[in-house]
Amino acid sequence: MPKVTFMPDSVTIDVAQNENLLRAAMMADVRVTASCGGDGTCGKCRMVVERGSVKAKPSARLTEAQVAEGYVLGCTAEVTGDVVVRIPPESRPGSAPRARSVRIPNPVISTDEQAERVPDKRAHPPVSKRFVKVSEPDHADNASDLSRVKTALRRAYHLKDVEVTIEAARELPSAIREGGWSVTATIMEINAHKCLITGFQPGDTTGRQFAVAVDIGTTTIEVAIVDLASRETVAQATEYNAQVDRGEDVITRIIASTRPGGLEELQHLVSRTVSHLATSLLEEHRIDIEDVVVYIAAGNTVMTHLLLDITPEAIRTSPYVPAATAFPPIEARSVGLPGTHSTYLITMPCPASWLGGDIVAGVVAAGIPWSDKLTLFVDVGTNGEIVLGGKDFLVACSCSAGPAFEGGGITHGMRAAEGAVELVRIDPDTFEPMIITIGNVKPLGICGSGLIDGVSELFLSGAIDRSGKFTTDTGSARIRRGEHGHEYVLVHAEESGTGGDIVLTETDIENLMRAKAAIFAGINVLVESLDLTLDAIEEIVVAGGFGHYLDLERVMALGMFPELPTEHFAFLGNSSLSGARLAAASRKMLEKTSRVAEAMTYLELSVNAGFMEMYTSSLFLPHTDLSLFPKTEELLASRLAEKVT
Amino acid sequence: MPKVTFMPDSVTIDVAQNENLLRAAMMADVRVTASCGGDGTCGKCRMVVERGSVKAKPSARLTEAQVAEGYVLGCTAEVTGDVVVRIPPESRPGSAPRARSVRIPNPVISTDEQAERVPDKRAHPPVSKRFVKVSEPDHADNASDLSRVKTALRRAYHLKDVEVTIEAARELPSAIREGGWSVTATIMEINAHKCLITGFQPGDTTGRQFAVAVDIGTTTIEVAIVDLASRETVAQATEYNAQVDRGEDVITRIIASTRPGGLEELQHLVSRTVSHLATSLLEEHRIDIEDVVVYIAAGNTVMTHLLLDITPEAIRTSPYVPAATAFPPIEARSVGLPGTHSTYLITMPCPASWLGGDIVAGVVAAGIPWSDKLTLFVDVGTNGEIVLGGKDFLVACSCSAGPAFEGGGITHGMRAAEGAVELVRIDPDTFEPMIITIGNVKPLGICGSGLIDGVSELFLSGAIDRSGKFTTDTGSARIRRGEHGHEYVLVHAEESGTGGDIVLTETDIENLMRAKAAIFAGINVLVESLDLTLDAIEEIVVAGGFGHYLDLERVMALGMFPELPTEHFAFLGNSSLSGARLAAASRKMLEKTSRVAEAMTYLELSVNAGFMEMYTSSLFLPHTDLSLFPKTEELLASRLAEKVT
Repeated sequence: MPKVTFMPDSVTIDVAQNENLLRAAMMADVRVTASCGGDGTCGKCRMVVERGSVKAKPSARLTEAQVAEGYVLGCTAEVTGDVVVRIPPESRPGSAPRARSVRIPNPVISTDEQAERVPDKRAHPPVSKRFVKVSEPDHADNASDLSRVKTALRRAYHLKDVEVTIEAARELPSAIREGGWSVTATIMEINAHKCLITGFQPGDTTGRQFAVAVDIGTTTIEVAIVDLASRETVAQATEYNAQVDRGEDVITRIIASTRPGGLEELQHLVSRTVSHLATSLLEEHRIDIEDVVVYIAAGNTVMTHLLLDITPEAIRTSPYVPAATAFPPIEARSVGLPGTHSTYLITMPCPASWLGGDIVAGVVAAGIPWSDKLTLFVDVGTNGEIVLGGKDFLVACSCSAGPAFEGGGITHGMRAAEGAVELVRIDPDTFEPMIITIGNVKPLGICGSGLIDGVSELFLSGAIDRSGKFTTDTGSARIRRGEHGHEYVLVHAEESGTGGDIVLTETDIENLMRAKAAIFAGINVLVESLDLTLDAIEEIVVAGGFGHYLDLERVMALGMFPELPTEHFAFLGNSSLSGARLAAASRKMLEKTSRVAEAMTYLELSVNAGFMEMYTSSLFLPHTDLSLFPKTEELLASRLAEKVT
Repeated sequence: MPKVTFMPDSVTIDVAQNENLLRAAMMADVRVTASCGGDGTCGKCRMVVERGSVKAKPSARLTEAQVAEGYVLGCTAEVTGDVVVRIPPESRPGSAPRARSVRIPNPVISTDEQAERVPDKRAHPPVSKRFVKVSEPDHADNASDLSRVKTALRRAYHLKDVEVTIEAARELPSAIREGGWSVTATIMEINAHKCLITGFQPGDTTGRQFAVAVDIGTTTIEVAIVDLASRETVAQATEYNAQVDRGEDVITRIIASTRPGGLEELQHLVSRTVSHLATSLLEEHRIDIEDVVVYIAAGNTVMTHLLLDITPEAIRTSPYVPAATAFPPIEARSVGLPGTHSTYLITMPCPASWLGGDIVAGVVAAGIPWSDKLTLFVDVGTNGEIVLGGKDFLVACSCSAGPAFEGGGITHGMRAAEGAVELVRIDPDTFEPMIITIGNVKPLGICGSGLIDGVSELFLSGAIDRSGKFTTDTGSARIRRGEHGHEYVLVHAEESGTGGDIVLTETDIENLMRAKAAIFAGINVLVESLDLTLDAIEEIVVAGGFGHYLDLERVMALGMFPELPTEHFAFLGNSSLSGARLAAASRKMLEKTSRVAEAMTYLELSVNAGFMEMYTSSLFLPHTDLSLFPKTEELLASRLAEKVT
């Protein structure tokens, strides 16, 4: 990881290869003037490269002489190696730099690190190709084609009780003869009792075998192609779930599914998205569909029902009953996915209506079922799914956080798409913001992590108080009375991509506080259900793309997660897809998902009195009981002290 | 069983209810003039009812006075109870009656008797409906619909490891709610490891559950509807296999299947026949297709491959390799059979290319796998399938007998259809024949049993010698020189339905001898493979409709079967269908078919030197070694003595 040292602050931060230099500065809490969203138009985030070099784009805002001196625009420069960068006075938003300790960004776990968290990752894949050479029949041994294959599979791979699909039986005679009594069988070995041959190819084709791992998100679908010969992910892509037009959240999808023809339509839309992603990746990597042996899909319970064309209707209303929590492997093509008769779809089990296969996959990918530590797993979204436990037990709940984390119900909220403000820093002296958007373009709105950052910065800068209300005597013109009460102007109209101001209102702040309160209350219910207290938690795993640029101190200041040293946090990225990828590569991992789903104790919060009580106490920043957040208390005190000086 | 006593012969015979009186006389070896085939036109087979009564049709050939005296035409009268019948002198074909011992007809085993031969017949069916009432979900228990059903199945029926098809999962939510948390599951329990729910119906529908048992013969297909609630067969019907137009035997069918589109066409034809039979019976008995839970089909290996759309190509040529010998259960509708997604097709395993599921089913239906007796099972057809063994072991072979037993390759041969001569008696003094046809109509040709009867009668009357050649000095005009050597006129043109003579030629006799020699040689190979001799055989079971009217002494005289007391013979009728019916009603019976198929040792005769040797020695009547047939030797001696007197 390249190191970037910012001067005169003397702050060093480890960043990802090709990280944006402005983003690096913001993550390091280095103050830079940055109000255009990062598209290079305002030319204010000038920085001087003192040692090392960055990959900078030419800019009309810089003179040749400046370029010769090492000037770059932070927002258009990429870090390619260790570098020392000076922030010149003209790029400072006002106050002088302060000495700060060196810090590291959020510990996002790499794929390799992640793999180390789980055992058995090198076990045989649950669906794979197996090559056998059988003896040519003669009068002394004229056993059937299939008997020969079964005998060879037993001898070569100790596979017993092998069954066969009728389609595989049909293609065996020609495949085995075309291959000169050599044949490759596609075999599904889901557990010790189930060993099913789903197809045959002539000769040895085991060098070409692939799985499609799928995370079926309500909003986005992510697909990875796993090469089962090498166990490596060879390609990955994301697309909006085509169902999005039929409703933003699972509730509206369920309602849409109950209309005449609605279920079929939603099934068609989700499979169309998966098909499109898979087909594009396969074509791009020149992978023949006949060499795709399995799809492994993880999704929430509603998405899983819809993919499998099972009505999710009863999930919507109390007492929230899914049709099923475990699903049979089926021919992928039977639900409209590309594949031959031998390409099966395995769907991750969903323990409850509001706790799906995505969470099970994530928990497995995080290695929690093997962990000695009491680990908290949190997937933050419209539904906050929370799992607590380790290798001996797992308790889980799901709390309705509302759409705030996805930019929903927020005045200028938007999804985490291009133009969304995702990083916010607010100068505690001037209340001037630094922002950067996804895609480094003019800001269009605020996404979930921008919202968390913004509210947290408003709080830590003293712009809002512990109840989320604006301090009106700051003297900053950014804080003003809007149509619906007080608001903070994050982006002025002239710098926005929408032509209007982008603001954060008190209502927006309340919505975020309700969302974070639900998560924190859910965590508490789980902890209390085990007769433990929050300090028993040894590790926190945050799932979802969400956590990537989140600053943990800021999130903790909001009171969303219990306070824990930052090194005990792990950000897993799309853990649902990771779990699906791991399950595609190892039968033991897939088996583990079933066992985890069965073993998980699900607590229904909608009827839990303790939850409502804790939720209400959590509607403060960070909480009514400040003693639960000693670090935040300390941080607030020090910020206040800084201001006073 | 009604008893018929014929006077003045003083012969009593037990016959089936409604047996034809002329047929009863012939089976009792009572001589009556009968040359028209039994259609009532010649009026020669007059008999006088002396005690009891028969159900006789009015005939223009009898005067009112004769009717008043008790005269009936034997061929148009049915036996309804014990009766004493006198054959008047004018109905005698010539010679005087002889005193004979009382005899009984072939011991055809009734369904009830047959059921007694097998244990476990009351075990649970392999596919059946199970009713469960589940608790209504609430907040304290909001387990999924499927989990509730699984819990209830475990509690009520001790069913564990229950899996579900995706189609069943799809229909569960509506079924369980429509039934008010009561639901009926269609469950396939093929073995302890496999318990699969294939469908759901609201409420309790277990009172209506049916299986379709199918015997897929090369020539005819027979279907039985089994009520799984009562375990009774409620309907049964037979039809020609629609594939017959594509070739008479399995070899021509295989050839037809290898033509472009041929396999699909043959599959379509066989499933069309099964569908037609099943649909007609279900409609007639007002059975809803949704209440048909399974098809259980038994057929030879080629027919089984064709039904399942698997190429049988490699079965045709040495070393005769089938694609598979055991087949997965599949959705019946996937091969064109009527049914819902929950109606599965289970196909009996086929141990070898020339030993099919029909034989396995027959062996199980005969109770052989539970028998302490060394039992010989023979299914006589174009392929003579022979099994020898008991509860400890089973050896089997298949010998190509040629089409003679089905009327093929015989000058005036025909299938066992209306108009086929099926019973023949030849007067040893005059060489005049008595015949009766299927359907009691004018004769059109000779079927397999007519051929056996005819050749055996020619032999026992001295019309042909032990090598099957005609004795030309009998003085009978019935024996004449035809176009292709000597022949016997069984029916003169004026009495036939074809307008021409119906004859038996020396070539016909040779063909039959080759067929019976193949069977006998096969039996010998099996016996010798166990280091035993023929007299070790304790019971002989003859399968197929074939044996129904066969006279055992006559068959033994031909040398087809080893000589055994007639009471040690059992005629099983369509044992393939019986086996399928039993398997439909009892899971243990179905499991037994799998174990029998696996345990059976198949001997390939085409490479067996002992077979060829024994076959050659068997091309005599009854055999070159007369000492193997002491009873026939005795019979021949006594017939000779009768002639001399």
